[in-house]
Amino acid sequence: DCVCLCVVDPGVGTERLPVAVLADGRWYVGPDNGLFALVVRRAAEVETFAISWRPSRLSDSFHGRDLFAPVAAMLACGRRPQMREIEPSSLERASWPDDLPRIVYIDGYGNAVTGLRARTVDRQRIFTIGGHRCRFHRTFGEAAAGEVFWYRNSNDLVEIAQSGGSAARALGLELGTPLEGQ
Amino acid sequence: DCVCLCVVDPGVGTERLPVAVLADGRWYVGPDNGLFALVVRRAAEVETFAISWRPSRLSDSFHGRDLFAPVAAMLACGRRPQMREIEPSSLERASWPDDLPRIVYIDGYGNAVTGLRARTVDRQRIFTIGGHRCRFHRTFGEAAAGEVFWYRNSNDLVEIAQSGGSAARALGLELGTPLEGQ
Amino acid sequence: DCVCLCVVDPGVGTERLPVAVLADGRWYVGPDNGLFALVVRRAAEVETFAISWRPSRLSDSFHGRDLFAPVAAMLACGRRPQMREIEPSSLERASWPDDLPRIVYIDGYGNAVTGLRARTVDRQRIFTIGGHRCRFHRTFGEAAAGEVFWYRNSNDLVEIAQSGGSAARALGLELGTPLEGQ
Repeated sequence: DCVCLCVVDPGVGTERLPVAVLADGRWYVGPDNGLFALVVRRAAEVETFAISWRPSRLSDSFHGRDLFAPVAAMLACGRRPQMREIEPSSLERASWPDDLPRIVYIDGYGNAVTGLRARTVDRQRIFTIGGHRCRFHRTFGEAAAGEVFWYRNSNDLVEIAQSGGSAARALGLELGTPLEGQ
Repeated sequence: DCVCLCVVDPGVGTERLPVAVLADGRWYVGPDNGLFALVVRRAAEVETFAISWRPSRLSDSFHGRDLFAPVAAMLACGRRPQMREIEPSSLERASWPDDLPRIVYIDGYGNAVTGLRARTVDRQRIFTIGGHRCRFHRTFGEAAAGEVFWYRNSNDLVEIAQSGGSAARALGLELGTPLEGQ
Repeated sequence: DCVCLCVVDPGVGTERLPVAVLADGRWYVGPDNGLFALVVRRAAEVETFAISWRPSRLSDSFHGRDLFAPVAAMLACGRRPQMREIEPSSLERASWPDDLPRIVYIDGYGNAVTGLRARTVDRQRIFTIGGHRCRFHRTFGEAAAGEVFWYRNSNDLVEIAQSGGSAARALGLELGTPLEGQ
């Protein structure tokens, strides 16, 4: 069994529900703050649960350690902590888009990841970002030295990179910078 | 058995003693440079040992790898490396305080941790740091957007944070910045 | 068995060969881009293989995940993936030097590692780097506060450090800064 422990939890200690999702045979454990909205949307078979189990000591600021990790461990050991089934639809966020054509992550090398699935995009596409027009290359090795380009990254997302440099620095990219031309 | 391998060791390669501490059933392995002073002070039952075991090759600059990690591994396997019992008092630092009302660590988000145990502080307390008055919130979710506040972190230390921002940047905090009003 | 999974792979997705090297009883898995040139040069006994095995899905940009890690796992489990023996000399880079007297890595503390093996250097040697003359100290503890010095690091490389500070910042060191006086 695969169990994904997911702790992106700015609302830790508030009323948001701790949940466990069984989606196509894979468990996801974490807070219900939208984190599993797309998991639920894309799963063929899904069961969703509100976690009732609580540890004897629960801090206000680190449910990842105190609540979610023990629950994930129990599931990984084949045990089910106390939880009650809830409607999958309660975890969805109907108005959220399938793709987000903006920078959502910049890695340590200055490669800038978008929220746009590469499979939805033709490889002839020219994107404009930070005032720069980027064309597709399959690999870093195909780009000219210093060229800023886009490629399909290993998670199937459109990623902006510079051969031998930092795309984020070259184009002044930040979280949220929009990708145009799509 | 729990074995903590502790390598904060600016004096590596000098005469400070390699030690192992058994405190309330938990092993700590590392250099005697004060690192275990508070462990010894707070333990109900404590035995302390100077490590006599040496590896066949001991570098001058990485006893964490060459000496302490193998010793920790032996203890974790239930074996005792060669060591001789010493007086616990020899590891203490009597003049060191129980709490340090200063910034001792700044994490990647700009949250600034102090050395002050939150359990010793009333939640009505207003702290002044970097010229700013901070009040208590139980969670990030209770603070207003952009507010700098203090909370009890998951290690029971007073921590300075900004909702949706970097407290360290907002207030110009650095290691050693004093916390006032306590 | 020890298996080293080595993924420094700027040419990922291009024609460079995926290889496995058995050098003095230790496996190395990764791309043939020179990464194993010195492993082959220094090994007493070496066998080299081109990896023919391919996963059912191979991304263009992350062979570390898709190809090299599964191969390393198979070798670690005692299984040999499909591969064919090749000449060790094909992995060598005859013109590459044994040592590189330049900064090759700067760690998070500002210590600057060179590609010069310390065993090849007399401890009386004075190096000049960034306009500063550095003498040898065996440990950080032997240097004066604030002194920039060189020492033999735990990988047996000459490393430039500052006692209680960042050598890289103090001397303006960067990747590639030359070490003189050797």
